[in-house]
Amino acid sequence: MNYRMILYIMGQILKGVGLFMLLPIIVGFIYGEQHVVTSFGIPFLFLMIISFALTVRKPKDNSIFSIEGFVSVAGSWIAMSVIGSVPFMISGEIPNFSDALFETVSGFTTTGATILSDVESMSKSCLFWRAFTHWIGGMGILMFVIAIMSSNDSRTMHMMRAECAGPKVGRLVSKSRFSARILYGIYIFLTVAETIMLLLGGMPLYDAIIHACSSAGTGGFSIWSDSIAHYNSLYIEMVIAVFVILFGVNFNLYYYILIGKFSLAFKNEELRTYFGIIATATALITLNVMDMYDSLGETLRHTFFMVASTITSAGFATADTGQWSVFSQTLLIMLMFVGSCAGSTGGGMKVSRIIILFKTGIKELKYIVNPRAVATVKMDGKPVESDVVRGISSYFIIFMLLLAVSLLLISLDNFSMEESTSAVITCMNNIGFGVGRFSPSGNLGGLNNFSKIVLCFDMLIGRLEVYPLIMLFASKKH
Amino acid sequence: MNYRMILYIMGQILKGVGLFMLLPIIVGFIYGEQHVVTSFGIPFLFLMIISFALTVRKPKDNSIFSIEGFVSVAGSWIAMSVIGSVPFMISGEIPNFSDALFETVSGFTTTGATILSDVESMSKSCLFWRAFTHWIGGMGILMFVIAIMSSNDSRTMHMMRAECAGPKVGRLVSKSRFSARILYGIYIFLTVAETIMLLLGGMPLYDAIIHACSSAGTGGFSIWSDSIAHYNSLYIEMVIAVFVILFGVNFNLYYYILIGKFSLAFKNEELRTYFGIIATATALITLNVMDMYDSLGETLRHTFFMVASTITSAGFATADTGQWSVFSQTLLIMLMFVGSCAGSTGGGMKVSRIIILFKTGIKELKYIVNPRAVATVKMDGKPVESDVVRGISSYFIIFMLLLAVSLLLISLDNFSMEESTSAVITCMNNIGFGVGRFSPSGNLGGLNNFSKIVLCFDMLIGRLEVYPLIMLFASKKH
Repeated sequence: MNYRMILYIMGQILKGVGLFMLLPIIVGFIYGEQHVVTSFGIPFLFLMIISFALTVRKPKDNSIFSIEGFVSVAGSWIAMSVIGSVPFMISGEIPNFSDALFETVSGFTTTGATILSDVESMSKSCLFWRAFTHWIGGMGILMFVIAIMSSNDSRTMHMMRAECAGPKVGRLVSKSRFSARILYGIYIFLTVAETIMLLLGGMPLYDAIIHACSSAGTGGFSIWSDSIAHYNSLYIEMVIAVFVILFGVNFNLYYYILIGKFSLAFKNEELRTYFGIIATATALITLNVMDMYDSLGETLRHTFFMVASTITSAGFATADTGQWSVFSQTLLIMLMFVGSCAGSTGGGMKVSRIIILFKTGIKELKYIVNPRAVATVKMDGKPVESDVVRGISSYFIIFMLLLAVSLLLISLDNFSMEESTSAVITCMNNIGFGVGRFSPSGNLGGLNNFSKIVLCFDMLIGRLEVYPLIMLFASKKH
Repeated sequence: MNYRMILYIMGQILKGVGLFMLLPIIVGFIYGEQHVVTSFGIPFLFLMIISFALTVRKPKDNSIFSIEGFVSVAGSWIAMSVIGSVPFMISGEIPNFSDALFETVSGFTTTGATILSDVESMSKSCLFWRAFTHWIGGMGILMFVIAIMSSNDSRTMHMMRAECAGPKVGRLVSKSRFSARILYGIYIFLTVAETIMLLLGGMPLYDAIIHACSSAGTGGFSIWSDSIAHYNSLYIEMVIAVFVILFGVNFNLYYYILIGKFSLAFKNEELRTYFGIIATATALITLNVMDMYDSLGETLRHTFFMVASTITSAGFATADTGQWSVFSQTLLIMLMFVGSCAGSTGGGMKVSRIIILFKTGIKELKYIVNPRAVATVKMDGKPVESDVVRGISSYFIIFMLLLAVSLLLISLDNFSMEESTSAVITCMNNIGFGVGRFSPSGNLGGLNNFSKIVLCFDMLIGRLEVYPLIMLFASKKH
């Protein structure tokens, strides 16, 4: 393993995080919050110094393979989570380390699960940083570094694979750097568009930026304990619901639209299934919880928002789903596993993986009836390589095994079986809320420190899609 | 599809069930229960007539393939469950059809989940039939028919595959009929041995036969509401715990021992893992619930019994696990998924499948680090065919998808999320108890009729390992 190169990449990434930390400092100055000088200034300086030390000399041997990509990404995400939690501790707004770390990991991984019971008491700069970590983590910090770096293309693919969501990672254009720039361009455009739409709905600028960043990463942190329900505005709810759905779409499809290949975008099987699942789940839950609301319109408003918020892994709330029936809550839990499209900022297993798992099952049934018939799994009308199919089955197996282990560890804490299970599921799929005391009206602050650390790993496992984290801890030196 | 042949096989199987029904009639006569004349006499006559009609003429075309094997086994199991429930209804002891069917399916599938709150009020003949369905279902009724039939060997393998448990089915000896006879011989020997051991512990003969049959099938029906705790005898508990563990071992290993190939038996990887899991789970739960009992011995006594009872899918109880901590209950739920060894009478996914799933995960990690390295999954030191590995991954995927669908259907009933989930898990893995109102001190009688029917399918899906049931309903005519 090329350790020098791993440290060099980590240095580049931490430099990126450091630059991003200037923004909450600016927010702090605007609102006259003097604590930013120390709370953000100290970690900013630390990041600058350490990243300078790590990147001052380019390693002579700059060869990297998958393993180096995975390890440097996993290492960077852990490092930036630890350093990113420092402002919360120095400002005294989240004094406990495991709490501050949980909140930061929840931010970067775009989970949006919070340990805070009183969000409103936090300073503007810390609330901004909290939501902005979603924005950074959504598209990925490494992707940002690749976009701004003028680096050797051949090795960036290994790293992109480690941070991108979905079963397959391909470049849009032949150079990774330009791919990353295109993706970030679309990402920034959509974020700005949402901010403007929210402003048009009468939301203050600060709130609009916060919620746009939080939607963009499909994270879910808000500046209000009652989340989006605070605004009680149908317009704002629909803007956010539509935008989280848009951020849950594979960004490659936006590129296809940009270059005029409309049919490639709109005939996409994953996209159609994604919309189909949203429509079906909204209809089923609407029928199921109809008697809880005054009118069909009112019911649809809440169910559509919560379905969109759940499947995209945003985890914003307008309704306390803890009050919904067991059927509706169970369906939401299943949507958490499904997740959004590959190549989006959303979490979960990803719709394309679910489609391929389903088709793998059908294929097996055909095989059992007639072992000589050669059935292939197709996606968008084209056969999927057997390596990809096998990889997805294995991913599902490893994901479920890790879920079982986490569940066992969390069950040592004093929560009910369904609460513990929902905590693991919501963290591994990067959603943000669960059931019982973890439903939208509650928070995860009651967990003990051990559980919080386990869930931090679960969130990172979910966001980085399992492998980087395992590689970091299990890879043998070679 | 060769429908004539399917009906012919079903006729043979139903004849076997009819013959088995003579036993509760004998029990009824011994205890002077006159209702057996109608309650068992009517379904007995019906079985004889219908099986005569179906088997009186041998089909000219006796070719069958996998699909016919699956469909005839699934069809037979559903038919025998419906007819097997008639005695409960005619005797008036379980008047409701969905209740009687649930109890019978739970019997044949060796689940042992009951809807009865007052087992003691039932007649001796009905209690015998209830436990005896476990014995019939444990080794499989088709296996019995093959053992007593003098049939064409080439087609029986297709059928054996449909009823046998585990990822691979091989014959012990070249003729299926003799394989089936050897297996039934071992089965009867072990059942008789357990009966004698229980008698030596002072258990009355009737009770001993009932509990031996129930252990043999790893079913779990008892004649007492408080199950094995009723006897409050360490000796009886240990006899039952040891025997359910023995019935959870692959029967092929007993054959190896019989023919003197000891090392083949004792070096078996699945067997060692199975014992390892039992020891580890017992130790973990003992540490976890120690403060609930007076002494370490007392704790070990209950945890060893409950671990053995759960992993083998028997579902007998000496302790109300509903009072245990969430950690211990979660661990038991996981043991339900693991299950016992392939080729045993136990349920669950089977230890060998779990081993191979685990190794498939490891292999994928190696592949990701180095795609050019060819890693193989090994079992007992030998590479496992890639078809088998793929089949197991697919089995797991289909099993989890069916579990999700069942969960959604059961969640429409008025139980908590963890109760509903545990009901589906306990039924699909053929265990018998869950958590909350379904923990050993409770029963499943409170579910509505729709849920009971769904769980009947889940139990059959679990016992017949998914495919036969799907084939029955999904196969196209060809």
